Amino acid sequence: VRGDCTAVRATSEVEIRVRYAETDQMGRAYYGAFFAWFEVGRVEVLRNLGATYADLERGGVFLPVAEAHCRYLAAVPYDELILVRTAAALAGPARLEFHSEVVSKDGGRRYAEGRVVLACVDRRGRPMRLPVALREALTHPQGAPQ
Amino acid sequence: VRGDCTAVRATSEVEIRVRYAETDQMGRAYYGAFFAWFEVGRVEVLRNLGATYADLERGGVFLPVAEAHCRYLAAVPYDELILVRTAAALAGPARLEFHSEVVSKDGGRRYAEGRVVLACVDRRGRPMRLPVALREALTHPQGAPQ
Amino acid sequence: VRGDCTAVRATSEVEIRVRYAETDQMGRAYYGAFFAWFEVGRVEVLRNLGATYADLERGGVFLPVAEAHCRYLAAVPYDELILVRTAAALAGPARLEFHSEVVSKDGGRRYAEGRVVLACVDRRGRPMRLPVALREALTHPQGAPQ
Amino acid sequence: VRGDCTAVRATSEVEIRVRYAETDQMGRAYYGAFFAWFEVGRVEVLRNLGATYADLERGGVFLPVAEAHCRYLAAVPYDELILVRTAAALAGPARLEFHSEVVSKDGGRRYAEGRVVLACVDRRGRPMRLPVALREALTHPQGAPQ
Repeated sequence: VRGDCTAVRATSEVEIRVRYAETDQMGRAYYGAFFAWFEVGRVEVLRNLGATYADLERGGVFLPVAEAHCRYLAAVPYDELILVRTAAALAGPARLEFHSEVVSKDGGRRYAEGRVVLACVDRRGRPMRLPVALREALTHPQGAPQ
Repeated sequence: VRGDCTAVRATSEVEIRVRYAETDQMGRAYYGAFFAWFEVGRVEVLRNLGATYADLERGGVFLPVAEAHCRYLAAVPYDELILVRTAAALAGPARLEFHSEVVSKDGGRRYAEGRVVLACVDRRGRPMRLPVALREALTHPQGAPQ
Repeated sequence: VRGDCTAVRATSEVEIRVRYAETDQMGRAYYGAFFAWFEVGRVEVLRNLGATYADLERGGVFLPVAEAHCRYLAAVPYDELILVRTAAALAGPARLEFHSEVVSKDGGRRYAEGRVVLACVDRRGRPMRLPVALREALTHPQGAPQ
Repeated sequence: VRGDCTAVRATSEVEIRVRYAETDQMGRAYYGAFFAWFEVGRVEVLRNLGATYADLERGGVFLPVAEAHCRYLAAVPYDELILVRTAAALAGPARLEFHSEVVSKDGGRRYAEGRVVLACVDRRGRPMRLPVALREALTHPQGAPQ
């Protein structure tokens, strides 16, 4: 998903156990459930960058989804322990792009890969630049010399 | 739902088709999905009483759930056309109680019955009396002499 | 969404009222909810073609999602009456592609557009050709001479 | 929730972070989300007793919900780390009862308490006795002398 990630901490890896609520009658995770998992991954990327999404909203910064895509590679069974691995990148002054992949925790299986683009808007929904701290964290993820 | 409902318009009947998203791998509607259906029924009761819940919120009146109960009588299959029949009653100056039943549209099957209590709170979550118009509509549901 | 659809009945238009369950704390429909709406639209396309998805599954034909995409154009508010307009096309012997758009019922607003690809598999998850009746219905949607 | 639990291992404690998908526009977790959390708690009780629910189903044992109740004590905010504490008890030869409570991980807040009754049925939905190993584990939870 990430190409060269050596210097990157704009990433997260989250462990999730598939809930019964998330299955459908095909006996697998419903295709819509993956987008909630991607959201969990994105939130942890932000936390790793020093910003909780809850705090961003309290500060008047909102990140609604502008675009979402998922490619499903294999059925995810109920009760499976999955890892959601996510990486973020700036996609403009008011835009973030996240790439995620869903794999089995034991590593044997790749379930899905996704891409989600977030816009940055203010309380009234008007586009605004991402907070500078967040932009810098994404540009120099590991506190590299600035 | 309640025995003699002849004079009551604090009721609603909503038709819903069970979504694939709402099924689980037991091949029936997930038990949590019923609570979203009950919510749809409650909202239509309010609309029938002349108040949309969206407007209530815009006016600073919020109705969070204080208590919810459901008894499941039979499995609801995917793609089934169900009716959610709901009736409301005052349960105090800051409290509403709704009773719902879920039946198959063709009438042959009773799937579940539920009871949900809503509290009335203001924007900060403090208890407040229900708006007078709503209280009166619930007390004299059919525009009976007041 | 559809280009030239003049002769096509491999379409559906479904009216949905946005549920409170589908909102998030940004005060709009959650981005994952759209995929459940797209599913509702797909199911009605199949029904219009003479096949219920429930019957397909009973006959051993399953249509898991291979790929899903959504572009979000505007925030969908709670309680909004939306239309989901969907069109289907064959995308190979074992593949269906659906395009959907979400608009406000009063027509004033375009909320989202989506694209979902379904694979056709048997009970064990092995790829299989779509049932011939379904393929023909998609090729000659309006009962045109065959 | 549990009265005297001194000898009991028919319990679980699960940590869950509230997802954005689980919030509603009141800015709190939607009341229906709690039932998915209770389900997570129940599954971990079974795992602690030596039975995964996934294995039970593979063996032809299904545990649909017969009754569910939740009392909501305080609004659960987005991104909150909650604990779901669950205890199980036999409620007849074909019936299990679970009591759960939802608290903030830091212990300062009690959010909700729930009660869910499961029936035990076979593949066709006919009532059946709970597997003997599960019944014994629930009767003598800690491998006490039998």
